[in-house]
Amino acid sequence: MYLTISDKPSTEELMRKIYMDNGNTTPLHPDVLPEMLPYFSEHFGNPASIHGYGEAPRNALNQARERVAGLIGATPDEVLFTSCGTEANNFAVKGVGSALKKKGNHIIASSIEHFSVLYSCKFLEKHGFEVTYLPVDGKGIVNPDDVKKAIKKETVLVTVMHANGEMGAVQPIAEIGKVTREAGVAFHADAVASAGNIPVDVAEMNVDLLSMAANMFYGPKGVGALYVKKGTRVLPLFDGGVQEGGRRAGTENLPGIVGMGKAAELAKAEMPERIPRITAMRDRLIKGLQDKIEFMYYNGHPTKRLPGNISASMEYIEGESMLLFLNMQGVAASSGSACTSRALKASHVLMAMGVPVEVTHGSLLLTLGRENTEQDVDYILEVLPPIVQRLRDMSPLYEDMVIKKRAGA
Amino acid sequence: MYLTISDKPSTEELMRKIYMDNGNTTPLHPDVLPEMLPYFSEHFGNPASIHGYGEAPRNALNQARERVAGLIGATPDEVLFTSCGTEANNFAVKGVGSALKKKGNHIIASSIEHFSVLYSCKFLEKHGFEVTYLPVDGKGIVNPDDVKKAIKKETVLVTVMHANGEMGAVQPIAEIGKVTREAGVAFHADAVASAGNIPVDVAEMNVDLLSMAANMFYGPKGVGALYVKKGTRVLPLFDGGVQEGGRRAGTENLPGIVGMGKAAELAKAEMPERIPRITAMRDRLIKGLQDKIEFMYYNGHPTKRLPGNISASMEYIEGESMLLFLNMQGVAASSGSACTSRALKASHVLMAMGVPVEVTHGSLLLTLGRENTEQDVDYILEVLPPIVQRLRDMSPLYEDMVIKKRAGA
Repeated sequence: MYLTISDKPSTEELMRKIYMDNGNTTPLHPDVLPEMLPYFSEHFGNPASIHGYGEAPRNALNQARERVAGLIGATPDEVLFTSCGTEANNFAVKGVGSALKKKGNHIIASSIEHFSVLYSCKFLEKHGFEVTYLPVDGKGIVNPDDVKKAIKKETVLVTVMHANGEMGAVQPIAEIGKVTREAGVAFHADAVASAGNIPVDVAEMNVDLLSMAANMFYGPKGVGALYVKKGTRVLPLFDGGVQEGGRRAGTENLPGIVGMGKAAELAKAEMPERIPRITAMRDRLIKGLQDKIEFMYYNGHPTKRLPGNISASMEYIEGESMLLFLNMQGVAASSGSACTSRALKASHVLMAMGVPVEVTHGSLLLTLGRENTEQDVDYILEVLPPIVQRLRDMSPLYEDMVIKKRAGA
Repeated sequence: MYLTISDKPSTEELMRKIYMDNGNTTPLHPDVLPEMLPYFSEHFGNPASIHGYGEAPRNALNQARERVAGLIGATPDEVLFTSCGTEANNFAVKGVGSALKKKGNHIIASSIEHFSVLYSCKFLEKHGFEVTYLPVDGKGIVNPDDVKKAIKKETVLVTVMHANGEMGAVQPIAEIGKVTREAGVAFHADAVASAGNIPVDVAEMNVDLLSMAANMFYGPKGVGALYVKKGTRVLPLFDGGVQEGGRRAGTENLPGIVGMGKAAELAKAEMPERIPRITAMRDRLIKGLQDKIEFMYYNGHPTKRLPGNISASMEYIEGESMLLFLNMQGVAASSGSACTSRALKASHVLMAMGVPVEVTHGSLLLTLGRENTEQDVDYILEVLPPIVQRLRDMSPLYEDMVIKKRAGA
């Protein structure tokens, strides 16, 4: 696909920048960086230091831990800081697996987990574990009964994500947690896409471990957290020093941690306003596009979904081309998981939901965030339908299929 | 040990702040933060993104990789970013061990490695590996012949740190690397304490893997790197996305990485000035303290050592008390490894060098950095000897021992 001269945007269009890729990474909340700045230079000390330079960092570390704990209903000592969501997921899955290997070697995971969970499961499979991958229904939802049926006496861990960033569906975590509690099996929820965007309460959700990433809720990159319920056995991923209660060695990324704490505090305060506003924009955009584009399907549960998430699959289109044309119009969107968007493979998430492979290639992921406005929605509604039409007009298959389909074939 | 009223410092003393704990973590170089700032807000995008928001971050990631590679004589694709030195050490030791497990299950490590290396070795011991821990001489130096003798057909990795942050000795890495090259065994050097502070050249050093941490050379916390020579087999510590060539999953900590790149560039440019200046201050301080304090011993090789490192052990003193008194005088120092300073255990490094356990408890680690001045040296020479004397005067053992020693017993 090459762009012709006439596809070049006007200067005005190039100036217009709409970021609708919040499911990939979010822009920093403007109140976060000012809070982080003192911990780069003024308070650069190591929180572990006995001398005066350790004091402010130590206090800031404690405060950040309290703030993150406050966002998810945990106690501060149940929050372990990591370098990202991927580390938290690896830590949880491999850490519980290796801690409980003698107890049992069976793990249950949904088939739509993020690669950091799936490949951690694959890692354990190479080390003597058996993993049951649970199906999802057409709306991307795991059935808690399937979890119940899959549990056997060797099962030591169930891992099901809270919300899927690629197609938005929110899982019945509390119900799954009830099943795991009854069975006495550790339960990990990957809340990287959800924490800070929708309410997360570890007690209500009956989880034992929960992963988060600051950059998914307007905090900085390079910092995440793993909630580990008191008494849950998990071996470290990083061996070494005594940081994080000896469970995650390494000098703390203090500015990052402070930023995550602030973002958590802000998320808790702003969610009551953010969620309905973003949800309303999302629904208007979904409805508007549906009215204007044919042969388009929305993925994921229509209501049990992340507020900002729109996952659409369009026939007769390459998702990549759509992204490039949108980018020319100043719109940043995605075709799926950020971690694999450059791998150009069919999404394992959409495949698990039964979306035909050729349709997965025409996927578009628009993820709204706190900075998006109604004007952004209007603009997408204006520019996206002609892009889709233009791309289809360039597709040799499209004309034939349209004729056939319209004829009722 | 409780401080009496008379030990309270004057306001003037409280104002004086001298940071001599650069071996723990360094203050950020003033040119680093400005370079990082645009990647928090303006260029917050994910480098993996296809759209326009990915471009500046991607370019910055490439530039940082080039700069870090430039500091150690590597090619950019041999540099993998991590979240800290501890992660790099875990990645190297566990990664090579698990990649080569079928080839052999023997590892050689020096007995003075950082806990992130030692405990990664212990981890592998639990998974079927045998580890030979090499001794050091009284000056803290590993003998390359000992490496040669310890290598057997099952050996898959030798790991010896470049410089020890706790007592300053710099190891004969190039010679050890010659031995490992001849034997065809992978060689990892933990250069967390050395990289950016003394010249590091991976080719001259004959290493296959080398760990670094930005916060040890005036870069930010929360970012490190592992050099992996082309063709070296190493399994990831983080499974998941395709970042870092699929060898280290997780959204990149872009501001941190940019900061590490800048710190690497600055270190390369400034080392020719920094090293002689800091070394001269160190040597003046060593000489000055020696003239004023008796029953004091310096640890580590006198010349093959980190420019800023002074490791002293004093008899009849608790290191902790010394640190508290120094802190009262506005001086930040350390008693040993930052990762264990709060654990109050005898240093495994000093023990391996033959320092008697009771003497290790009186250890003082002063580590000078680029911000220290001759006035700082004068001040330490003025305040430390009376602190030592005061603490000894409070020790019931001291008086007896002094009398005995002076009598030649």
